[in-house]
Amino acid sequence: MPELRKDPVTDRWVIIASERSRRPTDFVREPLPTTASGRICPFCPGNESKTPPEVLAYRTGTAPNQKGWSLRVIPNKFPVLGIEGELNREGEGIFDKMQGIGAHEVIIESPDHALSTAELSEKAIEQLIWAFRDRVRDLRNDKRLKYILLFKNHGEPAGATLEHTHSQLIALPVVPKRVQEELEVSEHYYKFKERCVFCDMIRQEVKDGSRVVTETDKFLVIEPYAARFPFETWILPKKHASHFEDLDQAHAQNLAWVMKSTLRKIESVLENPPYNFLIHTSPLQESANCYYHWHIEIIPKLTRVAGFEWGTGFYINPTPPEESAQFLREAGLA
Amino acid sequence: MPELRKDPVTDRWVIIASERSRRPTDFVREPLPTTASGRICPFCPGNESKTPPEVLAYRTGTAPNQKGWSLRVIPNKFPVLGIEGELNREGEGIFDKMQGIGAHEVIIESPDHALSTAELSEKAIEQLIWAFRDRVRDLRNDKRLKYILLFKNHGEPAGATLEHTHSQLIALPVVPKRVQEELEVSEHYYKFKERCVFCDMIRQEVKDGSRVVTETDKFLVIEPYAARFPFETWILPKKHASHFEDLDQAHAQNLAWVMKSTLRKIESVLENPPYNFLIHTSPLQESANCYYHWHIEIIPKLTRVAGFEWGTGFYINPTPPEESAQFLREAGLA
Repeated sequence: MPELRKDPVTDRWVIIASERSRRPTDFVREPLPTTASGRICPFCPGNESKTPPEVLAYRTGTAPNQKGWSLRVIPNKFPVLGIEGELNREGEGIFDKMQGIGAHEVIIESPDHALSTAELSEKAIEQLIWAFRDRVRDLRNDKRLKYILLFKNHGEPAGATLEHTHSQLIALPVVPKRVQEELEVSEHYYKFKERCVFCDMIRQEVKDGSRVVTETDKFLVIEPYAARFPFETWILPKKHASHFEDLDQAHAQNLAWVMKSTLRKIESVLENPPYNFLIHTSPLQESANCYYHWHIEIIPKLTRVAGFEWGTGFYINPTPPEESAQFLREAGLA
Repeated sequence: MPELRKDPVTDRWVIIASERSRRPTDFVREPLPTTASGRICPFCPGNESKTPPEVLAYRTGTAPNQKGWSLRVIPNKFPVLGIEGELNREGEGIFDKMQGIGAHEVIIESPDHALSTAELSEKAIEQLIWAFRDRVRDLRNDKRLKYILLFKNHGEPAGATLEHTHSQLIALPVVPKRVQEELEVSEHYYKFKERCVFCDMIRQEVKDGSRVVTETDKFLVIEPYAARFPFETWILPKKHASHFEDLDQAHAQNLAWVMKSTLRKIESVLENPPYNFLIHTSPLQESANCYYHWHIEIIPKLTRVAGFEWGTGFYINPTPPEESAQFLREAGLA
């Protein structure tokens, strides 16, 4: 069972995933994962038996864990957290720990091995959005779970270990400190101004225009003012909403178009870079609030995070967001 | 002039280094820097004119910016912050910014191009420690500067862009949020317990022993309880001290031995991995305090930080610190 441990100096929780335990020799620079070399892809249709049984699939007529699906969600074969058991919070001298309870699932976005998310049809991206929503709505019934991160690692430098296009979710028994911080700062702003900081940001960015990539009637795509990374890109719903999983049909449909358009622009301008995308949303067991505003952050992996960033949490970004916004706008492809 | 911008949702400052501005095509996967190919190394003796004039050097008898030095400190040729000018804090709608005032210096650790820090003599490492201390003591006279990070990027995956062994310092006009957080949590602990959390940690780790790598009369080397990364290693002075720059001769001498021993163990067990080391210390303009305890964190770059970590600040570590401590202890080399 993995263990959650808290650092007493930073209040940061860490997952010590001892079941994935790696010895020094395991860390030698690994070769790129490849299926060209003839390895069998466990995410391809026909290989359903090579994964744990699915927890959700969109399919027409066929039986579970068989071919015929258009999207499939499975527990991660090597989960960083386990769903069975009790938290058992306890001390260890000055330290704090608990069992690594949570969920770790993989969303196989398409039966087609070779397509990137940007290359999927809008319909398929919309399906991915529904899968994210459906899994969150199911998992929130487990009251031990406090937060779910929905994310994607695209490309090996961004952490992907399998080529077949997929996203992940990790459900946690605590609200992570970084998320808690965003919530607190947003709530503080709301108390001071009686307005949501994200809603204010959207109004200012639309008026200013210099950091806007795309705008639809429902979403705004920007390069944020204090972007940590070159081409860091945020997708924000224009209407205030604290929880991603409350998304309605019209928003899901429009978001599918916006995501495809944005990812295509990024792939085109940066020549198919590795990237991560993450959905930032409010904690699972809390009701809708007026101060936090769910959104998607896309982070192309173009620069290396080095000693300075690790030591300070202060980022150095060599590309002003006004410049990256212009490159993305000029990419067209809308 | 670079600009500091603050994110309104996280209160995080970012350096937008527009003078280093990079266009999309600059981000194509760069080849490893190399001098084997015959490029001239600006850090090698004889090439002093290829760097900005030195701000400090340890040399015997020779003139500044000439050969004959054993260690040399120069301003970074492409600084992320500039030393001239005023901060000019101002708003930009809901956003906050200021001029990128600060210092960015490079410490060339040895005239020998090919040696890693671990391969330097103890005397040379002691010199590096003195250079760190001397630069901090000089820069703290500039009252605009609030924090100095001393760090090293070793190897290209850890962010090094030149091979010749060197460390860096960045002096900032604000105390970074991550540092502020560590200070606050430590102060909170002190108020609650009337003991330094690091002093408590040292006592517990010495008694427990399972995470100890090395112990001398003045320093303790451990794999921290909630290590974020495999083989994350901390070097802590056993006697409470809030500021690195107050280090005395006996501690500097012992630290040189401890650093060499620790880096050699890491290089041996992990086959010369890329790594970062960082000195965590109290803010520059504050007097000695009883709650924060300076220390060194060494982070081998063995795993990739992916979407989950970016989204939550929650780390997944596949190697329990008790196991990595055992590997390092067994490496011997003391």
